[in-house]
Amino acid sequence: METSRLAGLKPAELRAVIRRGEWTRRIHGLALGYTMANLAVLPAEYAYDFLLFCQRNPKPCPVLEVTDTGSPEPRQFAPGADLRTDLPRYRVFEHGRLVDEPTDVTKYWRSDLVAFLLGCNLTCAGAMERANVPMTKSVLYVSNIACRPAGRFSGPMVVSMRRIPQEKVVRAIQVTSRFPNTHGVPVNVGDPAAIGIHDLSRPYFGEAPQFEPGEVPVFWACGVTPQTVALEAKVPFMITHAPGHMFVTDACDEETAAL
Amino acid sequence: METSRLAGLKPAELRAVIRRGEWTRRIHGLALGYTMANLAVLPAEYAYDFLLFCQRNPKPCPVLEVTDTGSPEPRQFAPGADLRTDLPRYRVFEHGRLVDEPTDVTKYWRSDLVAFLLGCNLTCAGAMERANVPMTKSVLYVSNIACRPAGRFSGPMVVSMRRIPQEKVVRAIQVTSRFPNTHGVPVNVGDPAAIGIHDLSRPYFGEAPQFEPGEVPVFWACGVTPQTVALEAKVPFMITHAPGHMFVTDACDEETAAL
Repeated sequence: METSRLAGLKPAELRAVIRRGEWTRRIHGLALGYTMANLAVLPAEYAYDFLLFCQRNPKPCPVLEVTDTGSPEPRQFAPGADLRTDLPRYRVFEHGRLVDEPTDVTKYWRSDLVAFLLGCNLTCAGAMERANVPMTKSVLYVSNIACRPAGRFSGPMVVSMRRIPQEKVVRAIQVTSRFPNTHGVPVNVGDPAAIGIHDLSRPYFGEAPQFEPGEVPVFWACGVTPQTVALEAKVPFMITHAPGHMFVTDACDEETAAL
Repeated sequence: METSRLAGLKPAELRAVIRRGEWTRRIHGLALGYTMANLAVLPAEYAYDFLLFCQRNPKPCPVLEVTDTGSPEPRQFAPGADLRTDLPRYRVFEHGRLVDEPTDVTKYWRSDLVAFLLGCNLTCAGAMERANVPMTKSVLYVSNIACRPAGRFSGPMVVSMRRIPQEKVVRAIQVTSRFPNTHGVPVNVGDPAAIGIHDLSRPYFGEAPQFEPGEVPVFWACGVTPQTVALEAKVPFMITHAPGHMFVTDACDEETAAL
């Protein structure tokens, strides 16, 4: 199936296509204007520490919704949806090790699992486009900004860098100010060394960036942070979305925006 | 000691006075421009459900900080402070029943307690004054807006009503939009019946309001909600601030504001 055939679908329609296994690729370009969410599923035993970690670190870990223990339904952001089947691809981890990348996690579901939906920066990307701020591909780095620890979870903040033309930097800050649920404002503008990044040519994830004249590196807190922290904590079991294969909620971008 | 003698004190200085037992009255008029917090202390066994309840109901329950289990120190909002001694007066509840109103809860502290600091609408009051929106005394009602339940916690939203002159209503919405950590925007403007309030002369708390011509009843989610819900759930043990006797944080009002 082609992206173009799905582009006009509403979230519930798109999720139905995904649930039937007819779309297993990236979400990019689909359900434009709707809030996307990263997924992290953990055993209830770890849910309090993880929720507290998110509360203490809202920039990398903006919580949209937490399901009831054992329930795969996000009642607030997509009533009737099923988080076991409605994402195009998942990753399953045991003790910090990737063990599977299925398109359906029904067989892995347990009555003690809690699903966290976290804000995803695709939402912000739309707002940036509408404000005519060019969105270069993001490149990830591990900063020296320590997250506030919570119980078993601690670690550095992963940040995503985009090259922003000097004259668009202020606008980029303004636009992202309105999206606290999507990592919000930058954590650093133009001074990577101040957050412990000494060599931009060696990213944690992505290709080494090529800067055009006048482009400034701008860093935002990245949604990879909570996954990295959970894996470092060697949680015995975790399910996440596969990169780029997020959950599509029923909420419009502007419904999760501030002001 | 007089309010006027304390009015210029910084939060840490004011907390030291309170810790020494030299101020046991209301906080109103003190530490102006700083973020005040409501306090709720619960056994760790209830902390996950309570945190989840707050996450699902951010308007009545805006979480500023949650302490580590057993720790009375709010490291983010007031490092070095002690939540057992630094509020002017507390309320202690057992199984939903008020058993004490001490000025110090050191003797009640236990290693399994978790303290929640929740945004308080005194913070918003300052911003409203600066915007020349007259702040009439708030009056509380129990609405028919159901909070999203979480585990053992559920119940209706308590709302606080203020009389706002018609020509200031839009400004009041604008100002409170900037304070999502202090209950944010109104839940209802001018139509009490729509949220199940059929007789404004019979409030849940406060005196029956007397409306001047042109005044509109405007309702905000109220921070009494989480306490009411916790008491309804008959938690075996809970400590809160006494009404009006909030915790003074080190954060300026604007530090907890949006945009």
